[in-house]
Amino acid sequence: MAGTKRSLGAQPLLYPEPVLLVCVYDDDNRPNVMTAAWGGICCSDPVSLMVGIRSSGRFTYEPLLRRKAFTVGIATEKMVVEADFFGIASGRKFDKLAMTGFTAVKSQIVDAPYIDECPVVLECSLSNHFELGVHTMMVGEIRDVKADEDCLAEGGAFPDIHKIAPLVFDAGSKGYFGIGKRVGTAFSDGKALIKPSK
Amino acid sequence: MAGTKRSLGAQPLLYPEPVLLVCVYDDDNRPNVMTAAWGGICCSDPVSLMVGIRSSGRFTYEPLLRRKAFTVGIATEKMVVEADFFGIASGRKFDKLAMTGFTAVKSQIVDAPYIDECPVVLECSLSNHFELGVHTMMVGEIRDVKADEDCLAEGGAFPDIHKIAPLVFDAGSKGYFGIGKRVGTAFSDGKALIKPSK
Repeated sequence: MAGTKRSLGAQPLLYPEPVLLVCVYDDDNRPNVMTAAWGGICCSDPVSLMVGIRSSGRFTYEPLLRRKAFTVGIATEKMVVEADFFGIASGRKFDKLAMTGFTAVKSQIVDAPYIDECPVVLECSLSNHFELGVHTMMVGEIRDVKADEDCLAEGGAFPDIHKIAPLVFDAGSKGYFGIGKRVGTAFSDGKALIKPSK
Repeated sequence: MAGTKRSLGAQPLLYPEPVLLVCVYDDDNRPNVMTAAWGGICCSDPVSLMVGIRSSGRFTYEPLLRRKAFTVGIATEKMVVEADFFGIASGRKFDKLAMTGFTAVKSQIVDAPYIDECPVVLECSLSNHFELGVHTMMVGEIRDVKADEDCLAEGGAFPDIHKIAPLVFDAGSKGYFGIGKRVGTAFSDGKALIKPSK
C-alpha cells in the first residue's frame, strides 16, 4: 500500500555520506585537519565541492575563511581511527596531525596542506561561502585532484574505488562502512527503459 | 616519499557520492524525477541538504524554483536500472515515473511528490538557491524523513543502512556500487588517540 512510511522527523539522514578530511593552515601556519561528513560535489563548471562547517566551535572555520583555501582528503578504511579522531578532537587543544604521525604536504596550488596518507586529495580555493544557520557552506573550486599511483584504475585517468577503500558514514547508526560490490553502470543500464513516449 | 601523488586535473571526484532521486511536480502537476549525484547534508539547524542542479537543460530546475519544494528519495541496489534511467532521460520527453511503474505519493508536508518504492525519502522545502555556474545549489530544509518499516534498525529511530542498500556512485568508473561491511564506530574509535597535549 502506498504512503505508509514511518515519519522519523527532521534529521540529517542521507545515504551514503562521505568522510572528508578538511585541511587548512591555521594562523600560526600549523596544518590542521577536521572531519566532515556533510559535503559533496556541487557544480561542474567551475568544478566545485561544498562542505558544511559550523561557524561556532570549529577551529577550522576562521582560518579557512582567511586563507581562502582548503584541501579535502578522502578518508579510508585503513585510517578509520584517525579519521574519527580528527572529528572528535579540536585543533585548538591538539596538534592532531602530529599525534597521528600523518604527513602534511604543502599544496603547490592552494594555500593549504594535504594529508599524504590519503590516497586521493582535492585542492580547493574558496570561491563562495553561504551561512545557512549553525553551518556555513564552504564552496571550493577544485583546482586539482591528486591520487596515489597505486590506487589508480587501469589507464590512470581516475582512481579505482576499491583500491581507495573510502569510508561511508552512516549518521543513524554512527557507523563507518566500506564499499560493496559493483552493481551497475551509469549512463548505460537505464537505456533499457528508454522507448518513445506516446 | 611524501608529495609524489599523480595530478589528475580538476575533476568532480569525491568518494562516496550518493544517488539521489529528486522529485517535483511540473507545471501540469505531473510528478517528475531526476537523478542527482551531486548533493549532501549541509546544515544541522535548520537541518538542510543541498543538491546541485543544472539550470540549462534540466527539466526539474524551473518547477523546483516555482514550487519551492522537492523530495529526495534514496536510490537502492534493487532499482539501479530505474535510477540510471531517471538520470539519462528527460521529463520533457518522457513520463519517467509511468514508464517504470513507480508510485508517486503526494507529500502531506511539502508541495512535491515522493517515490514510494524508495525505502527512505526526505521531504524538503526550498530555503535558498545559489547559482555557482553551470549548476545551482538548491538548499532544502528537511521537513521530515520517511522510511519503510522494514528498513528500520532495531528501536526504529533510524534506518539500517544494509536494509536500505543505497547505491554509491563512482564518477570515475561510471559505476554504481553497494555498501560494504561495517568497519568502525563514529565518535568512539578515535578516542583511543586522545591524550593531553603538551
